[in-house]
Amino acid sequence: MEQFEQIDEQRSWSLAQRQAGKRISFVPTMGALHAGHASLIERAKSEGDVVVVSIFVNPTQFDNPDDLEAYPKQMERDWEVCQSLGVDAVFVPTKEAMFPNGYCTFVEVVGPLQESLCAVSRPGHFRGVCTVVQKLFNIVQPDCAIFGQKDLQQVLIIQRMVSDLSSPVEIIVAPTIREDDGLALSSRNQRLDDESRANAVSVPRGLELANQAFKAGERNSNKLMTAFANEVLMYENVDLDYADVVDLDGFVECEEANDHCILAVAVFFNGVRLIDHIHLGGPSLPVAIED
Amino acid sequence: MEQFEQIDEQRSWSLAQRQAGKRISFVPTMGALHAGHASLIERAKSEGDVVVVSIFVNPTQFDNPDDLEAYPKQMERDWEVCQSLGVDAVFVPTKEAMFPNGYCTFVEVVGPLQESLCAVSRPGHFRGVCTVVQKLFNIVQPDCAIFGQKDLQQVLIIQRMVSDLSSPVEIIVAPTIREDDGLALSSRNQRLDDESRANAVSVPRGLELANQAFKAGERNSNKLMTAFANEVLMYENVDLDYADVVDLDGFVECEEANDHCILAVAVFFNGVRLIDHIHLGGPSLPVAIED
Repeated sequence: MEQFEQIDEQRSWSLAQRQAGKRISFVPTMGALHAGHASLIERAKSEGDVVVVSIFVNPTQFDNPDDLEAYPKQMERDWEVCQSLGVDAVFVPTKEAMFPNGYCTFVEVVGPLQESLCAVSRPGHFRGVCTVVQKLFNIVQPDCAIFGQKDLQQVLIIQRMVSDLSSPVEIIVAPTIREDDGLALSSRNQRLDDESRANAVSVPRGLELANQAFKAGERNSNKLMTAFANEVLMYENVDLDYADVVDLDGFVECEEANDHCILAVAVFFNGVRLIDHIHLGGPSLPVAIED
Repeated sequence: MEQFEQIDEQRSWSLAQRQAGKRISFVPTMGALHAGHASLIERAKSEGDVVVVSIFVNPTQFDNPDDLEAYPKQMERDWEVCQSLGVDAVFVPTKEAMFPNGYCTFVEVVGPLQESLCAVSRPGHFRGVCTVVQKLFNIVQPDCAIFGQKDLQQVLIIQRMVSDLSSPVEIIVAPTIREDDGLALSSRNQRLDDESRANAVSVPRGLELANQAFKAGERNSNKLMTAFANEVLMYENVDLDYADVVDLDGFVECEEANDHCILAVAVFFNGVRLIDHIHLGGPSLPVAIED
């Protein structure tokens, strides 16, 4: 497995692969790899001839410096994960290589997708995401890139960016991977203390309760959001960032829910922010629900 | 010579060229081609194996709808110019292909380069330029792209964007081409009436007068700018948009001029806006100066 820290090294390698007629599939990550990332890498292997994984904790997408500081880092273990999964090249640039002093170019998707959910909670977050993704695409020059559905707003914004800027990259969305108790995998889960980890299962359970209410005929978005909120807020040290019913096209908030809507949520457990969502009327989540 | 209106057609052609090992050089234009463009195309031929010229009057870089409407269009003649110069492919996308309804992604260079000269006079202009250039790069996938030095702030901003986003494109700057009397070539010159065309030579003459004053020891930027302004403002129907002494690095205004500065100007002649600049202490412009 190759490992590159320099932009030019990664680009030269990618160019050689393309000239040899290889299809490059790409999984951009912030490291702290877990089974969710592994599923993205497996998908990448099935979509391309060679797989590149980038590991870069992108400072431009953190609105909160403490959150950036606390983001888990485990480079040796990440390297072993990539090695064991048969990744061909790992791109691990330094912050100085990616965002040198004087850096001043940004890519931004404006409009409805930027006016709800995480875009409101984390100002500048998606500008940072779009900027680093476009830059990584310019360096890695992939044919396709795999993103997890868990970060659905991120995926939709990146799809919009790629479509608008005519980037020659196919965006592939891979399903959310969950723990046995239903909690969506996230690098941030590592930061949960035991109590918060136990309480966090209220997120998928609350989503599923709202989904069951929707399937039973409830269409009032406030009531669906309340069904979720009641479930998570029964615990201590829990703060609700948002719980919103939005249309899948454009992420516009809906007062009346329909089967083209998701319930998207962000919740702090003892300061650790987790996000998740459910497609209303869609498949149930694998959670235990007490009668 | 190939002609493509569809993004996918241009991209497929470019991909085939690259796979055949050809180096693609690219000249992005807004049409109304003149000898300045011809010099860019000749340079492109010497830099690559195949030359792509795009012709697209980019609506996102016009802050003034009347200016967009009045921008000269002469597609048949442009096609003949490209044909006669041995261009390999002309990319002529429609506005709907480039900026369909709902388009919402923008690329922007922020900071000092965005806080002076044309960036101030034409809000949003360079955001539109950066966006269309990044998009054209994604479509045409050139190895190098040629820009004219006349639009110096544009060139510096694009170089900054390409460097920041690690675009795999070499930016080549070709010298300004001038009429015999010194007027810099521009598609906008077509829109000058006879009187304004005669008066417009005061732009290079004023720049050269300031340059001569600098060479004679004058360092006060206000005096250098006044030397220019006095020259152009002696005519009727002339409005000075700006005349500023700025440092070549970052385009920051300088009260005291030095040989790392340019005098950059924008002047309206009967409503037609022309820009030009001179490197203070650099080569003289080919203008007649009466004693």
